[in-house]
Amino acid sequence: MSHIALQCSECAAKHTADMATLHCSECGGALDVAYNSRTQDRHSATMPNPLHSPDDAVTLGEGGAPAVSLRNLGGHLGVQRLYAKLESMNPTGSFKDRGTAVMMSVAKELGVSEVVEDSSGNAGASVAAYAARAGIRAHIFAPASAPAAKLGQIAVYGAATHLIDGDRQAVTDAAIDFAARNALVYASHNLSPYFIEGTKTFAYEIVERFGANLPRNIVIPVGNGSLFIGAHRGFSELRRVGRVSDIPRLHAAQARAVMPIAAAFEGARKPATSAGGTVAGGIAVANPPRMRQALRVLRDTGGSAVAVDESDILRWHSLLAEREGIFVEPTSAAAFAGVEALVKNGVIRRSESVLVAATGFGLKDAIPQRI
Amino acid sequence: MSHIALQCSECAAKHTADMATLHCSECGGALDVAYNSRTQDRHSATMPNPLHSPDDAVTLGEGGAPAVSLRNLGGHLGVQRLYAKLESMNPTGSFKDRGTAVMMSVAKELGVSEVVEDSSGNAGASVAAYAARAGIRAHIFAPASAPAAKLGQIAVYGAATHLIDGDRQAVTDAAIDFAARNALVYASHNLSPYFIEGTKTFAYEIVERFGANLPRNIVIPVGNGSLFIGAHRGFSELRRVGRVSDIPRLHAAQARAVMPIAAAFEGARKPATSAGGTVAGGIAVANPPRMRQALRVLRDTGGSAVAVDESDILRWHSLLAEREGIFVEPTSAAAFAGVEALVKNGVIRRSESVLVAATGFGLKDAIPQRI
Repeated sequence: MSHIALQCSECAAKHTADMATLHCSECGGALDVAYNSRTQDRHSATMPNPLHSPDDAVTLGEGGAPAVSLRNLGGHLGVQRLYAKLESMNPTGSFKDRGTAVMMSVAKELGVSEVVEDSSGNAGASVAAYAARAGIRAHIFAPASAPAAKLGQIAVYGAATHLIDGDRQAVTDAAIDFAARNALVYASHNLSPYFIEGTKTFAYEIVERFGANLPRNIVIPVGNGSLFIGAHRGFSELRRVGRVSDIPRLHAAQARAVMPIAAAFEGARKPATSAGGTVAGGIAVANPPRMRQALRVLRDTGGSAVAVDESDILRWHSLLAEREGIFVEPTSAAAFAGVEALVKNGVIRRSESVLVAATGFGLKDAIPQRI
Repeated sequence: MSHIALQCSECAAKHTADMATLHCSECGGALDVAYNSRTQDRHSATMPNPLHSPDDAVTLGEGGAPAVSLRNLGGHLGVQRLYAKLESMNPTGSFKDRGTAVMMSVAKELGVSEVVEDSSGNAGASVAAYAARAGIRAHIFAPASAPAAKLGQIAVYGAATHLIDGDRQAVTDAAIDFAARNALVYASHNLSPYFIEGTKTFAYEIVERFGANLPRNIVIPVGNGSLFIGAHRGFSELRRVGRVSDIPRLHAAQARAVMPIAAAFEGARKPATSAGGTVAGGIAVANPPRMRQALRVLRDTGGSAVAVDESDILRWHSLLAEREGIFVEPTSAAAFAGVEALVKNGVIRRSESVLVAATGFGLKDAIPQRI
């Protein structure tokens, strides 16, 4: 018998753990991994893990990204302690590898031989890489407008790349349709409960690194929110077993051009998306399927959602590189612009500590430079 | 009094440790860091370090790259245990960050405010990043023909980029001339003894990871040989304090188009370079200034130098991505082609274990893909 089930994040209904079930059959809600109580007990000292044979996991050594101190930019903001966790230092260059490693390991355990995924680029590259390593055929659906570097990376791993014209939702629709027509597993990083389960290592590492002196605030760029929700799961598990007393405030940064979570958080009736798009392609998600979960994380941790302007994203992209030697993709820079906004509006006090998830490497989505 | 001096790698003459001295005043040889005996004793349990204040080091969390098992490609080669150490997972995407972190930390300790460096791209990006973090102005000289991704990365950190037409030697000459004319420090990663001192962590981590069960063979793509020589320094230190009994055989892989070390190793009179160039731009170094040291490492460890063909580099670039999910730059793929050649010619037996340095991330120097 499996040590896990899938549990609805909305109505708590339980389902058998497989790769096919992505929505609650009762209410349509997104699913999370639930461990049976014996597993919880056994794992009180370590991290609950959905794999049956962790030794056979599909891994490229993901995770373990350093949290470095940003004294120059902390001074610039007037914040005493500012850290960046360099998720760009994952095997394929983004935090997605944390989630993909677990999702593809489960797929391999269950004998899956072919998967379909849709992505603005980073998750697609990550799934393509781990699928290659696991010997699983991958079909990656991506916007035709995705950065060339990300599309090239997907292709080099040998995945079948399907470029779709239209918006991000059109890409998702095409992937779901293709999976259904060909009776393939839809390994959606947005919906898979195993993907979220992988990203929770982010929280475990922060507790390992900072101990009792946890950052008071963590700011994450949020599109679908898989790192945001996974981080909260990790901290919640650690609180349950008594390893942390308080969970840091988890804040979500979005681009003003595509801000469904920030708009819902503000209770605003204004449109969540606007014309013109954003350079932060990794968080340009108009309809995040786990939006309710993301909003609960904000509420439960006392976090805020903040929307930032394009000019601020670009300015922080340069500041990070020129003042701290950290080259991230624009999506990650949005989170730093978010810190600035949260400090300015008084949500984050200057005496508090802040950690920012630097989610993706700069070469993945480079802004052309003048040389 | 400083705990270090600079010692000639050829005639053992000692020099005061500064940033300006790059050659022995007696014989012109390359210099290494030498620790005084009290430092050696004190550090018997840890790693000797040239910094006076390690807590003030300029760091981005470099090093700690995972060594992952390659079962698919190990099977392909018929080698029982094959590992890749994913140096691509360093802050700027290459192993150079190990050396740069120490070199720029020393520069900061010595109050240097402006440096000059020449590079085919990776070291330039690395120096630009750490200089930005240290608040040091950097001039990076690079070939005008360097990959756009590498040049863009150098520029984003705010370094002054100087593009030079001509071969790699012309770039070095221009950098030396510029440094001399402007009385600036020439922070050459090829010559700086501090840079080599930083790369030795590669060996310490391998001993930490594998313990008594060290890989019998380590294959490294070698241009200037800073990782190759640094790895040997690390293993030698660990042998001196009794933490390892035998040093793995260190093998050097070069592209057949630019193979001075492989040619010298073979004692051949054939030209070390040929027309046509190589896709492995990171090791296209016709006159490596530490060549004698590299040859001594080969001799002392029982290693071999091997030259590989362009078609094999490209084939291994694809094999790594498609079979193991590892996307490296062509320079790194050359080392895997080197393993194949060394297995084929019997230097590496199939029953032996092999670790390969995957030195740089694929996006740094991407081969255009068909999508």
